[in-house]
Amino acid sequence: MPVPHVVILGGGFAGLSAARALRRAAVTVTIVDRRNHHLFQPLLYQVATAALNPGDIAYPIRSVLRHQANARTLLASADSIDLSLRKIVLADGELNYDFLIIATGATHSYFGKDWEKWAPGLKTIEDALEIRRRVLSAFEAAERELDPEKQRQLLTFVVVGGGPTGVELAGSLSEIGRLTVANDFRSFDPRSVRVVLIEGASRVLPPYSPSLSKKAKTALERLGVEVRTDSLVTAIDADGVCIGKEQILARTVLWAAGVSASPLGKLLGTPTDRSGRVLVAADLSIQGHTEVFVVGDLMNLQQGGQPIPGIAPVAIQSGRAAAKNILRRINGKQTLPFHYVDKGSLATIGRASAVGKVAGFELSGYLAWFLWWLVHIAFLVGFRNRLVVMLSWAWQYFAFSRGARLITGRGWEPGQPQ
Amino acid sequence: MPVPHVVILGGGFAGLSAARALRRAAVTVTIVDRRNHHLFQPLLYQVATAALNPGDIAYPIRSVLRHQANARTLLASADSIDLSLRKIVLADGELNYDFLIIATGATHSYFGKDWEKWAPGLKTIEDALEIRRRVLSAFEAAERELDPEKQRQLLTFVVVGGGPTGVELAGSLSEIGRLTVANDFRSFDPRSVRVVLIEGASRVLPPYSPSLSKKAKTALERLGVEVRTDSLVTAIDADGVCIGKEQILARTVLWAAGVSASPLGKLLGTPTDRSGRVLVAADLSIQGHTEVFVVGDLMNLQQGGQPIPGIAPVAIQSGRAAAKNILRRINGKQTLPFHYVDKGSLATIGRASAVGKVAGFELSGYLAWFLWWLVHIAFLVGFRNRLVVMLSWAWQYFAFSRGARLITGRGWEPGQPQ
Repeated sequence: MPVPHVVILGGGFAGLSAARALRRAAVTVTIVDRRNHHLFQPLLYQVATAALNPGDIAYPIRSVLRHQANARTLLASADSIDLSLRKIVLADGELNYDFLIIATGATHSYFGKDWEKWAPGLKTIEDALEIRRRVLSAFEAAERELDPEKQRQLLTFVVVGGGPTGVELAGSLSEIGRLTVANDFRSFDPRSVRVVLIEGASRVLPPYSPSLSKKAKTALERLGVEVRTDSLVTAIDADGVCIGKEQILARTVLWAAGVSASPLGKLLGTPTDRSGRVLVAADLSIQGHTEVFVVGDLMNLQQGGQPIPGIAPVAIQSGRAAAKNILRRINGKQTLPFHYVDKGSLATIGRASAVGKVAGFELSGYLAWFLWWLVHIAFLVGFRNRLVVMLSWAWQYFAFSRGARLITGRGWEPGQPQ
Repeated sequence: MPVPHVVILGGGFAGLSAARALRRAAVTVTIVDRRNHHLFQPLLYQVATAALNPGDIAYPIRSVLRHQANARTLLASADSIDLSLRKIVLADGELNYDFLIIATGATHSYFGKDWEKWAPGLKTIEDALEIRRRVLSAFEAAERELDPEKQRQLLTFVVVGGGPTGVELAGSLSEIGRLTVANDFRSFDPRSVRVVLIEGASRVLPPYSPSLSKKAKTALERLGVEVRTDSLVTAIDADGVCIGKEQILARTVLWAAGVSASPLGKLLGTPTDRSGRVLVAADLSIQGHTEVFVVGDLMNLQQGGQPIPGIAPVAIQSGRAAAKNILRRINGKQTLPFHYVDKGSLATIGRASAVGKVAGFELSGYLAWFLWWLVHIAFLVGFRNRLVVMLSWAWQYFAFSRGARLITGRGWEPGQPQ
């Protein structure tokens, strides 16, 4: 009998951890991704804010799996899945499987609004480079703007969404003006940069406790960020953002508010939630197909009456759990229910502050930031990356500089909506 | 009387060295560039071959000039120059000058052929990322190709042009297959990569002596590169390259053959050569306008009966000379003729070999490579870059790895002409 073929769709945290969990198993593994690289998404905001290079936080998937002899990597796009024939339809071929792990994650959602053009989100390297281009171009345009009102608009940055990504972006944007480019411009004071963080709920970082949210708000305000809670965005256009009847004039608006699951989830024909996430059984398999597992940001599973959040540790643990359940099934054993172990989480606010909960303890300030830094470095795939990221940060921390301040892609076009 | 206003078009080596030479002068300096960054072009091939990140070799122009109080940086595009009114017409405004230094350089030339689509050249960060995308995508496509002939075509890389850039690209491409990705693929042996370097003249690196050219050829062949001299390319298309009636089937063709001067040169109405370079007087000013200087790759000047080459040291020295002549003119002194001091030049061939001439001595092999490495590190703008580049290389050298192997930009599309 040939060894079972496990296909993993998606080379993010969930997919990679599933592949690695199968490294000693008598299976063949094929990991399929549209991109050639695994992306360390928790640090993507650092690329968007010009602190890190794309290559510092991304690594070829096939290099991660280089020494795993039973795994191969396919750069391909999965168009649909034929569950009855156990077959993936690729854009240019087909792929049969015995077991399938779907880990295609999520992207941003604008709740059906037409705002993406004016307020890009942050999910891919390209997103990050586009945000970097807009932010740096706004400073350049402000240098040449003679009308003080228009200059003010160019130097106003709005971040929509007060979750971890929004808080990280807002803190970094404020620091760019106050520290990084403080001496680079002649016709305005970059310290006059205005950064507004808008959150619909009553506090930032809603998953944390009210006291940590309050500490985060204080840290943001110390960095000069205006925090607007209980504020629902009603319009976004070339001129800025509206909160009800109030308009905030801003040329750069960033979106960190909603996520929506990968469209593959809805193609399975099994129940999904409002965001398109797939409702999975306790062992992470889907209804009617015990050989198909959904993990990471694409899965919807409750634990203790709460939905498990879409964060990296959940992706890693669920990918591993699905792989182990596949091995149990191959060996004729009962699958085990997935149980997420929350080791804690931290959200950073600028250069030397963070808040979070680790091993049951609430942390904030410098210590939390240092722990955040350690954890993220330790998790980065690949030694070289760890070293370069560490150096980049050390440099940035001590020199208030940012090493990746390039405007690439589209050149600068005058009078464009950026 | 207001202080004279010196406008510098172009933030490359020539423009930046001119600006720096004016740092203590009683003038105001405006440096205009379409891009926000200065690019260390001699290392651009390392970005194209995935060894360095864009941010390692590019640096914001305004940061370079941060502490030069008499200088400001303008991100803008110069459309034309009104020599009689001493005015630059920008895409979105105008700029008056008392003295003008034009340092807008050169781009690639396809000698009027329609080959750019199939054989991209290497001048900008975007060019380098496009080449990186094509090279890495060819490996990915080869992994999935079942037809051995098509797979062979995907694994064949042709570099047109045997000057320094072509030699560097060919050497690096061969190393990518033989060392970097050697264990990453399952359906072919990356060591079977075929790299062909095509040169029209009778030897590679024509500016060097015949014996150095021969050493370079031997070093390339040791790396597995097929060197084809006396070979004129007659066609380039989706299938590959033709040399007369011989066709080399290759999916990836890179262009390192011709350069053509920036179009601004022809707009001046003064004599230009066949490549569009501006014929300048001995003091680098142009005919009829002693307040306008042309420097770097855009200038055409003979020295000792030979045209001065379009390389970085010439750009740096000519930019500085033009700045000094402007100061002499302001102070009522005679301008001085420009004299290029050739301190030597080196071309690298792969991981540990180079050839060149330094202080009158011909060098080759490991020592030349080490010297090349020292010189390039020393010249890189910005301490942080130096450190990161040094580390990237040390890592790459000892681990045979490349840290920037990302396919970004366009995603992978099946069946595309790449």
